[in-house]
Amino acid sequence: MRIIKSIKQMQEVSQDLKRKGKTIGFVPTMGALHQGHFSLMRRARKENDIVIVSIFVNPLQFGPKEDFQKYPRDLKSDAGLCKKKGVDIIFYPAVKEMYVRGFRTYVRVEGLSDVLCGKFRPGHFRGVATVVTKLFNIVLADVAYFGQKDAQQAIILKRMVEDLSFPLKIRVLPTVRDKDGLAMSSRNAYLSQAKRKEAAVLYQALNVAQKLIRGGKKSSADIIRKIKRLIEKRKTVKVQYIAIVNLDSLKPEDIIKGKVLIALAVLVGKTRLIDNIVINSHD
Amino acid sequence: MRIIKSIKQMQEVSQDLKRKGKTIGFVPTMGALHQGHFSLMRRARKENDIVIVSIFVNPLQFGPKEDFQKYPRDLKSDAGLCKKKGVDIIFYPAVKEMYVRGFRTYVRVEGLSDVLCGKFRPGHFRGVATVVTKLFNIVLADVAYFGQKDAQQAIILKRMVEDLSFPLKIRVLPTVRDKDGLAMSSRNAYLSQAKRKEAAVLYQALNVAQKLIRGGKKSSADIIRKIKRLIEKRKTVKVQYIAIVNLDSLKPEDIIKGKVLIALAVLVGKTRLIDNIVINSHD
Repeated sequence: MRIIKSIKQMQEVSQDLKRKGKTIGFVPTMGALHQGHFSLMRRARKENDIVIVSIFVNPLQFGPKEDFQKYPRDLKSDAGLCKKKGVDIIFYPAVKEMYVRGFRTYVRVEGLSDVLCGKFRPGHFRGVATVVTKLFNIVLADVAYFGQKDAQQAIILKRMVEDLSFPLKIRVLPTVRDKDGLAMSSRNAYLSQAKRKEAAVLYQALNVAQKLIRGGKKSSADIIRKIKRLIEKRKTVKVQYIAIVNLDSLKPEDIIKGKVLIALAVLVGKTRLIDNIVINSHD
Repeated sequence: MRIIKSIKQMQEVSQDLKRKGKTIGFVPTMGALHQGHFSLMRRARKENDIVIVSIFVNPLQFGPKEDFQKYPRDLKSDAGLCKKKGVDIIFYPAVKEMYVRGFRTYVRVEGLSDVLCGKFRPGHFRGVATVVTKLFNIVLADVAYFGQKDAQQAIILKRMVEDLSFPLKIRVLPTVRDKDGLAMSSRNAYLSQAKRKEAAVLYQALNVAQKLIRGGKKSSADIIRKIKRLIEKRKTVKVQYIAIVNLDSLKPEDIIKGKVLIALAVLVGKTRLIDNIVINSHD
């Protein structure tokens, strides 16, 4: 397994691989790897000749008051994990390699970026779309893998790939969960034991919503009210948003019919966590 | 020579060429081909295995009151000219092929897009950056060729390629001029004979500026005032802007030293024309 830090070198290696007819599977990450990432790597390993993982904590997608500085970083441990999973190359650029002086080009997926998480994290999805564009141009993947846990991100990036005709496919794989249902996230590491326990309420709430919908409830407002009450019974958990939206447009669905995305974000203490499920009310 | 209209097909052909180790030179155009385009095609022919020309009148870069509808279109004639120049493939997509329903992803090069022409054509350079990103992703070129006539466009696209790490090089070739110095442009076709004559004043004015600078004049305001007066002696010509700016930042240079870009835009009747030269005051 190689670790490449230079954009030019990574690009040349990828161009060479493509000339040799190799397919490249790509898993973009910010490091602090967990089971969610491993699931992406496993699938990439199965479907491609070469697997490239990028590890880059992207400052452009953090707000000024967010956790960019304290975001967990441990290349040595991450590299060991990648090697075990059969990754061929880690692309590990420095911030100043990715954003040179005078950097001023941004990709925006309008209409999808200012709702849900985007409302609470202005600029976040512009940062994501921009860095992913750049990574796609550097890694030259055939398939890029993302987790359903970041549902809005996945929807935005699929739209971006379609709109800008990137020569690759995006695969979105199911959220990997801990035994109690908590979605795997690098940010779970911020939680104390007590808060970690309370955080299980996110998935419980989503399951309650699913039951209500399958039981015939159609009013989004009613369902949201119910699960908000459930979540806020936990002392340290504060709801940032709960939304029931259309899967493509991310627009609120007041009356539930067909497939919907139920997405939520909470603060557990100071730690921001998100989760979501897709429900088909006709099931 | 092939004409390809489908994004998917074009992308597959290009991917296949890359796998075979062929280099691709790319000349993006809006058709209505002239000597300026031919100069780009000749250079692309010389430097690459395969030459691809796109012909696409991009609605995204026209303002609501601009000439999108009446912009000259003649595929038959353009195709004949491309064939003569040794072009291998014309990529000729329909508007609805490029911009599907729900299209919402845009590329913006901030700070460079709202000055000079951008001030008079809001959204223009966002439209250019977006369509060129898309074309780059479809055509998968090794080198893309642009004309110095559209100086601001060239500067913005070079910045974009650097910022987003596109795996290609941009070459900017000198403006091709008619005998009287008028820069070649598809929009010259809009001019009546009388107006066509008056339009020669653009290049005359740039030459006067060059002489003044080489003669030791350092005040941009003085030079701009002089050549504005010269241009507006022509009855049908109205100055939109004249600017002396830094070559990278496009910021005004009040006192001229080293290399500067002198750029201008005028209306000749209803026809908008632009021109520019780069002057090194140390020459």
